[in-house]
Amino acid sequence: MTARILDGAALARAIREELKPEVVACTRAARRPPALHIVLAGDDPASALYVRNKERAGAEAGLVVHVHRLAATATLDELVALVGGLNRDAGVDGILVQSPLPAVMGPDAEARVFDTIDPRKDVDGFHPHNVGLLSQGRAVLTPCTPSGVVELVERSGVTIRGRRAVVIGRSDIVGKPLAMLLLQRDATVTICHSKTADLPAVAAEADILVAAVGRAGFVTPAFVKPGATVVDVGINRVTERDRVVELFGDGSARLADFDARGSVIVGDVHPAVADIAGALTPVPGGVGPLTIAMLLRNTVAAALGRLKPAPPG
Amino acid sequence: MTARILDGAALARAIREELKPEVVACTRAARRPPALHIVLAGDDPASALYVRNKERAGAEAGLVVHVHRLAATATLDELVALVGGLNRDAGVDGILVQSPLPAVMGPDAEARVFDTIDPRKDVDGFHPHNVGLLSQGRAVLTPCTPSGVVELVERSGVTIRGRRAVVIGRSDIVGKPLAMLLLQRDATVTICHSKTADLPAVAAEADILVAAVGRAGFVTPAFVKPGATVVDVGINRVTERDRVVELFGDGSARLADFDARGSVIVGDVHPAVADIAGALTPVPGGVGPLTIAMLLRNTVAAALGRLKPAPPG
Repeated sequence: MTARILDGAALARAIREELKPEVVACTRAARRPPALHIVLAGDDPASALYVRNKERAGAEAGLVVHVHRLAATATLDELVALVGGLNRDAGVDGILVQSPLPAVMGPDAEARVFDTIDPRKDVDGFHPHNVGLLSQGRAVLTPCTPSGVVELVERSGVTIRGRRAVVIGRSDIVGKPLAMLLLQRDATVTICHSKTADLPAVAAEADILVAAVGRAGFVTPAFVKPGATVVDVGINRVTERDRVVELFGDGSARLADFDARGSVIVGDVHPAVADIAGALTPVPGGVGPLTIAMLLRNTVAAALGRLKPAPPG
Repeated sequence: MTARILDGAALARAIREELKPEVVACTRAARRPPALHIVLAGDDPASALYVRNKERAGAEAGLVVHVHRLAATATLDELVALVGGLNRDAGVDGILVQSPLPAVMGPDAEARVFDTIDPRKDVDGFHPHNVGLLSQGRAVLTPCTPSGVVELVERSGVTIRGRRAVVIGRSDIVGKPLAMLLLQRDATVTICHSKTADLPAVAAEADILVAAVGRAGFVTPAFVKPGATVVDVGINRVTERDRVVELFGDGSARLADFDARGSVIVGDVHPAVADIAGALTPVPGGVGPLTIAMLLRNTVAAALGRLKPAPPG
């Protein structure tokens, strides 16, 4: 293994430390700490875990984090009404509705709910108004995972300007906003997806390659230009022992993990890429911790924004 | 010259014909024709010409087009107040504020004014809310020039899906929204700009190459893969005779034009590209006429949208 490992967990800790004086200043100015309200609908165990992690990180950073729980049987109208109340509540700075929503709410439920959130409180950055501001280079609240990727790359000393960046995946949550952030930093950006012809060859043009496809080990060494920086956004749970052997080899620490727990978390990047990439983000411990740090930063930014007078118009 | 010439003027006429029954239906439902209100501030002669073309095309299509003229000395606040009145006026379906605004209004004037326009009446598609909806693949009002480019490419029988598209230029008006439209049509999209390293080589990866840089003859044959479709968004006025000779040659029809008028309009694509491209849009007569056709289509879409009940939230 030759790639430098980009330690997202350590950077996330550093960013949370940097936030503390801002939280103190914001608390003094508003006479209360920045307040993040999370809505958790249903009983998805992974969502519950994500929300607990956000609660803990928020509390450690000096924020107030309040979790509103809705039963899996709650209706979309109930959820929209709850969000409407949080919009009107002057004590709420940031609103996050945890995805995925219960399937019974219907396929358009997330768009409907995200559209309902006051853009000034939209700490996920998913509201169309904030997506538009991001495209125009004037966003205040930027989606957390893409911001975390850029933060990790920049603070690792990797040059973005003038380099070729390839993003695999075109989701509204990662791929498209990340492309905009890299473009603003003067990368030449290519967006790839399931319909891309000869994907490995296109990916191998990248100086900075970002994988956000949601398929364990999808990005093999054939996708990677030697020396490239490879950012792995995937968080995939592998539950088949054969697949773990195939990815990490017999006798690997990951296989021991698997044998102890029955599953392992694996990124979109194949472990063999570590032999060819110049720098690589691990999974876990790469982009994931940054996502939460960026959520805290957005909450503080939203709280600070609310201390200013409302813009005209 | 071998490239097939993509006739934007003919396609624009066809689209305006297709719109007529929609205008009739909309007029019947609303008991008045779709109404486009254009604001023209200052006395830029090119702007005045563009506005006249929009007025004429709108009237021919059966729309009501009303032009509000503001003196070059008008303040930004006056302009914002005028737009606010148009927002509230139920008789107005579409609002277009012609760019550029007088320099005295300040560098942020356009963003301020575009942000003021009711997104449901924003027929230019520049409001951040509409930009966000476009990114998310659910726009109703899409910027006119990018839609025109896609329309011209698709209706010319050029396959977009799975092909490599390269957009040179990352403006909010053309480059970025066009990248989103091509991505939605399953192209693998690369966005290039002034900081792109080895731009000709990157451009030459394209099956569909779009030039939106605003520099006469910038895209030379070195930028073009043989057989590629080349779309020229540039509208550049060349006022130097030597440059016209350089681009089109001594004894060319364009040089005769120049000698008669003192200037010629030239695209971003060098004339020699016609020998290597598979298909090429001319300037004038390519993307330009489509832009106006798309404006009319947006106005009808805005009028139809206003006939529906307001969305919840």
